[in-house]
Amino acid sequence: AEEPAKVKTCVGCHGQGGHSVVPNFPVLAGQHAAYLEKALKDFRDGFRHNATMQMFAKGLTDDEIKALAAYYSSQK
Amino acid sequence: AEEPAKVKTCVGCHGQGGHSVVPNFPVLAGQHAAYLEKALKDFRDGFRHNATMQMFAKGLTDDEIKALAAYYSSQK
Repeated sequence: AEEPAKVKTCVGCHGQGGHSVVPNFPVLAGQHAAYLEKALKDFRDGFRHNATMQMFAKGLTDDEIKALAAYYSSQK
Repeated sequence: AEEPAKVKTCVGCHGQGGHSVVPNFPVLAGQHAAYLEKALKDFRDGFRHNATMQMFAKGLTDDEIKALAAYYSSQK
């Protein structure tokens, strides 16, 4: 899937195409889209707690979340 | 890393070698060991909420968690 604009905010921790090189930040490349969507929604809606992720996820719309999840799951 | 005995409990959802085929269950193969350790400890210690995962993580020792995380992160 093509690269959503919001990906710029993710690259710092999750790396290019979700190939994170920092062990605390999970690899996103090739992860299931449904799982990524749930994680982002849980961070956005306060069901999953991580200060950084909750801050980044806060303003995301469902469509932006879907696009980010599709993008990362499609990365090899 | 070699396959810990406890892996048998994970295979049902996360698949052989952590190659989950069910989209709600995350792929574990190739994920960072530090991230997997944190996730398992958070589930075990109640910092991250998922009924199934909390049940499975409940009895795990730190060593078992380390072995599981090492095993899955080493899967291609």
